[in-house]
Amino acid sequence: MATPIKVGLAGFGNVGSGTYSILKRNHSLITQRAGAPITVKRVAVRNVDRVRKLVDEDVAVSSDWHDLVTDPEINVVVEAIGGIEPARSLILAAIDAGKHVVTANKALLAEHGNEIFKAAEEKGVNVALEAAVAGSIPIVKALREGLAANRVSSIAGIINGTCNFILSTMRDTGRSFDDVLAEAQRLGYAEADPTFDIEGIDSAHKLVLLSSIAFGVPVNMDKVHIEGISRLEAKDIKFAEELGYRIKLLGITKYTDYGIELRVHPALVPMRRLLANVEGAMNAVVVKGDAAESSLYYGKGAGSEPTGSAVVADLIDIARTADANVSERPKMPTTQHNPGAKDFADFGDTVCSYYLRIPVDDRPGVLADLARIIADNNISIESLIQREAPQKEDSTEVILMTHSTIESLMQRAIRTMQQLKSVRGPIVVLRKEELQ
Amino acid sequence: MATPIKVGLAGFGNVGSGTYSILKRNHSLITQRAGAPITVKRVAVRNVDRVRKLVDEDVAVSSDWHDLVTDPEINVVVEAIGGIEPARSLILAAIDAGKHVVTANKALLAEHGNEIFKAAEEKGVNVALEAAVAGSIPIVKALREGLAANRVSSIAGIINGTCNFILSTMRDTGRSFDDVLAEAQRLGYAEADPTFDIEGIDSAHKLVLLSSIAFGVPVNMDKVHIEGISRLEAKDIKFAEELGYRIKLLGITKYTDYGIELRVHPALVPMRRLLANVEGAMNAVVVKGDAAESSLYYGKGAGSEPTGSAVVADLIDIARTADANVSERPKMPTTQHNPGAKDFADFGDTVCSYYLRIPVDDRPGVLADLARIIADNNISIESLIQREAPQKEDSTEVILMTHSTIESLMQRAIRTMQQLKSVRGPIVVLRKEELQ
Repeated sequence: MATPIKVGLAGFGNVGSGTYSILKRNHSLITQRAGAPITVKRVAVRNVDRVRKLVDEDVAVSSDWHDLVTDPEINVVVEAIGGIEPARSLILAAIDAGKHVVTANKALLAEHGNEIFKAAEEKGVNVALEAAVAGSIPIVKALREGLAANRVSSIAGIINGTCNFILSTMRDTGRSFDDVLAEAQRLGYAEADPTFDIEGIDSAHKLVLLSSIAFGVPVNMDKVHIEGISRLEAKDIKFAEELGYRIKLLGITKYTDYGIELRVHPALVPMRRLLANVEGAMNAVVVKGDAAESSLYYGKGAGSEPTGSAVVADLIDIARTADANVSERPKMPTTQHNPGAKDFADFGDTVCSYYLRIPVDDRPGVLADLARIIADNNISIESLIQREAPQKEDSTEVILMTHSTIESLMQRAIRTMQQLKSVRGPIVVLRKEELQ
Repeated sequence: MATPIKVGLAGFGNVGSGTYSILKRNHSLITQRAGAPITVKRVAVRNVDRVRKLVDEDVAVSSDWHDLVTDPEINVVVEAIGGIEPARSLILAAIDAGKHVVTANKALLAEHGNEIFKAAEEKGVNVALEAAVAGSIPIVKALREGLAANRVSSIAGIINGTCNFILSTMRDTGRSFDDVLAEAQRLGYAEADPTFDIEGIDSAHKLVLLSSIAFGVPVNMDKVHIEGISRLEAKDIKFAEELGYRIKLLGITKYTDYGIELRVHPALVPMRRLLANVEGAMNAVVVKGDAAESSLYYGKGAGSEPTGSAVVADLIDIARTADANVSERPKMPTTQHNPGAKDFADFGDTVCSYYLRIPVDDRPGVLADLARIIADNNISIESLIQREAPQKEDSTEVILMTHSTIESLMQRAIRTMQQLKSVRGPIVVLRKEELQ
């Protein structure tokens, strides 16, 4: 028999209210699918008066999250507070009380997941996290179950809607980053302090969770190379477009001979790839496995009900399997790599191909100097294009695309080129992901 | 504890051999994820000698599928024979013997699913069918579990790789259907008798399964309106492109006020939609739910290991949950609609917008006649374009796009237009799917 679920809901903002709405609106459908009813019994929020008016009379509302933990009838706590504290304390207390936990809190799991997953394993309860990665998209389930037959080799995802909205709009309109960011803030797509989004930190949080699930390694934010989109210039988006690429902020994790790569950075993606055509605030994740080959999962990465959809899916799963032995549920790695899993790679070892934009003097010999430095570092050039000189008559820009090489070699070549007298300013470096 | 699985594998063609390869190559990984080992114990095939050389010594190979059913150690039968018989008899016998069944056989399930799902429910065993729809894509799991919180309103999918390869190639090259079909047959993308694929029957098989899962209704092939791609002309692909659309063979099922739509036909999809950019032999399915909104699932829809990936995922799920009560596993509807589910819609009630290509005399008054007939049927015109007259000097072609209307009204208007003396030949009718 399935287990009736009494939910203790912490937080009634975006995710909490979406979860509540879905559970109420689709109650009979959800009961049928879960095999038992799922009901919110208690809500813990800061502003009790506001939420008291928004929920049914039989739902208890209080301002103390401890009430969710001490209520013996509550068997699942949904953490929809966000941030590190008190979310961490609540989750650990709920686990300690033998309750399952459902959370959308990627920042917390990326920073403190090992502690939380270990506590859950010891207590034999679930920490379900579908809502923490890519909102409505059931990518955690796809990785753990749908693709369970596969040795995954790589994941590449557009996992921050704010950045994708900004990049799509920059491309569509030719406007600058600052200008589009301001619009995104007006439209509510970007926060007043957009740092977490635009500097790639939010993407990195989700990426370490995906990597942990796919490769059986503990979460480790220190191992992620993170570059955001705040220094991207409209002209690079335009040049990339002319060369047949779109620029997307990707979270990439690969299982390679030299270890597990973890990196977040803007990347040129060939226009014909589906991932290059993901527009606006949408999310998408490409997974490569040895049997399924390439598959892609696309949907809303944020929003009240899209994220609530993932929370409720986790609740239904728990209702279905709460009575089953915990060994039958997919586990998160905790402090140990799974047997046979590789260590994390050094970023310098990353194999990649590159787009460089190099501001140079417009005079004979400059291209030859650049080409020689590239060759000296054993890098092969795919194309080298001199752009029309913009304002200044004696300067121009060179767009240089390389074949696959090693990050540390590329960086050395860039340092050397940067020292040339004929190089007039900072070289812009972007990576390409062919996603073949 | 998870349950060790001893598989009886029927068939060792494309799907059977892929399943076997994956189980062998990723054995330790699969054991870890399933919580117990999954091993092929017996194979039943027509050509014992061929397969005896391909599998390990400890695997029994025989030509009689009854051996899979009578072996008491076998707890799961994988049916990878295809076709109706003996697949149907094998599956029913396996169920009767209390064994779970995993199958990739969409034709069988679409035609005889109600009988099979009913037998399975009575015996308390699984009939797992991830591999039957869209190969490697875990769409069955997404619908049943990942999106379980949602009231699904529509599904639209490219679920036949052969047709998508042909349509992509026709668009890329401007070549005719017959020409590209011949190439597809040479490349192995199309069978010697391609009828099932190109006439939309294979898509319909998968569509009724998707509809059954999403809406809780029995499978019913008789309710599907089916049009294939064999009469599509290169010029319509070109005209659609000029108007900002790509033509895809879609399987569409919608939950509407007038019942559940089930239809397979070529459709114009706006170019900016991700689904319009699915190229070659790939599959993709768009699902709309009330909470998750729009999501898309993309991957290989066929092939030995991609399909095997789905078979093995089902085996892992069975290993994880075989000990759990059957009520905790998602069920297929059998002969009854789920409570509250609507009946199937009449095709004539379908709400759709249309593309018409009308060969007409090149003389004054013709456009006015067409526009009047459209207006008389309460249909509103979105655009009406007269193409350059091709060969004959006194004839031309009109492309007419409508706003949303009702199929039966459109058909009546077409019949009336077809009777005009100024209409020179059959009117080409295609439907648009905006996928908004």
